[in-house]
Amino acid sequence: MKFHVEQAVEILSKTPETVKSLLENLSDERTKTGDNREDWSPFDVVGHYIHAEDTDWIPRAEIIFKQDAERTFEPFDRYAMFENSKGKSLGELLETFAERRRKSLETLKSWNLTDAHLQLKGMHPELGEVTLEQLLATWVVHDLTHIRQIVTGLAKKYSENVGVWKEYLSILK
Amino acid sequence: MKFHVEQAVEILSKTPETVKSLLENLSDERTKTGDNREDWSPFDVVGHYIHAEDTDWIPRAEIIFKQDAERTFEPFDRYAMFENSKGKSLGELLETFAERRRKSLETLKSWNLTDAHLQLKGMHPELGEVTLEQLLATWVVHDLTHIRQIVTGLAKKYSENVGVWKEYLSILK
Repeated sequence: MKFHVEQAVEILSKTPETVKSLLENLSDERTKTGDNREDWSPFDVVGHYIHAEDTDWIPRAEIIFKQDAERTFEPFDRYAMFENSKGKSLGELLETFAERRRKSLETLKSWNLTDAHLQLKGMHPELGEVTLEQLLATWVVHDLTHIRQIVTGLAKKYSENVGVWKEYLSILK
Repeated sequence: MKFHVEQAVEILSKTPETVKSLLENLSDERTKTGDNREDWSPFDVVGHYIHAEDTDWIPRAEIIFKQDAERTFEPFDRYAMFENSKGKSLGELLETFAERRRKSLETLKSWNLTDAHLQLKGMHPELGEVTLEQLLATWVVHDLTHIRQIVTGLAKKYSENVGVWKEYLSILK
């Protein structure tokens, strides 16, 4: 698919609202952290979105956009939220995520990116050379990946309750 | 997990808003029907939600709740939306889904279900005997399944754009 920044922004701008709609009225039992690095709760996922907002997407995009001499990204800490989110409520995290995302997209729009900008390159610490288009597309897919993780986790809580219907429900497999 | 009707309703009541948040501002290119029975577009999924609302969840729950002599459910047509949604816009479908869901949940609440009701049984045309709890849990999981389908489909449109990041993104596999 031809990549359009505005279409990516259409999705990116709605993620905080979508996640809030999924989670805001759920009881704690289904959202709170289990402090499990391999099995993230919705609370953990929202903290992870915030950390990526602060240290990954725009900071990396800026390195590419500005084309400084040193273009290697800082490694991203996938588990930082277990510490950062301590003592916070899910409601606070949802608000913080929405606010940070708004700022990120303001910054992105202020660059008035052209197709030429999208082909500029930075250096991923593990993957090597990457373009700005690849980074922005990954941002979108990452948003969707974690919505998928939230809904899959919520569904799995009903694995036993669905009885014989389980065989029709691929999300439980 | 112990099944609570109110917790199921927490999720069911938010699905139309979540789906609207995901889709309402996307360009047609990413949402319109491809008339493909094996690969549903977001437009198809919303039509499918409406058809299930009209012919599946509450009609079946009512058969169980009322414990009439004949308790076998009508078979559900998974493809009815390809015909039913013709000529409609995604915006219309989203509104219709929200309205039907509101009515469904009003009906459900009016029954004041107890734990005893949840163990009442009906007859699925293929799966055999099922309880009201199993039906309601399946309703929730079905909602989440199709949110997952929508986000996975949106993500896959970026499969080529993410470049080398693809190996980190399980949603694209």
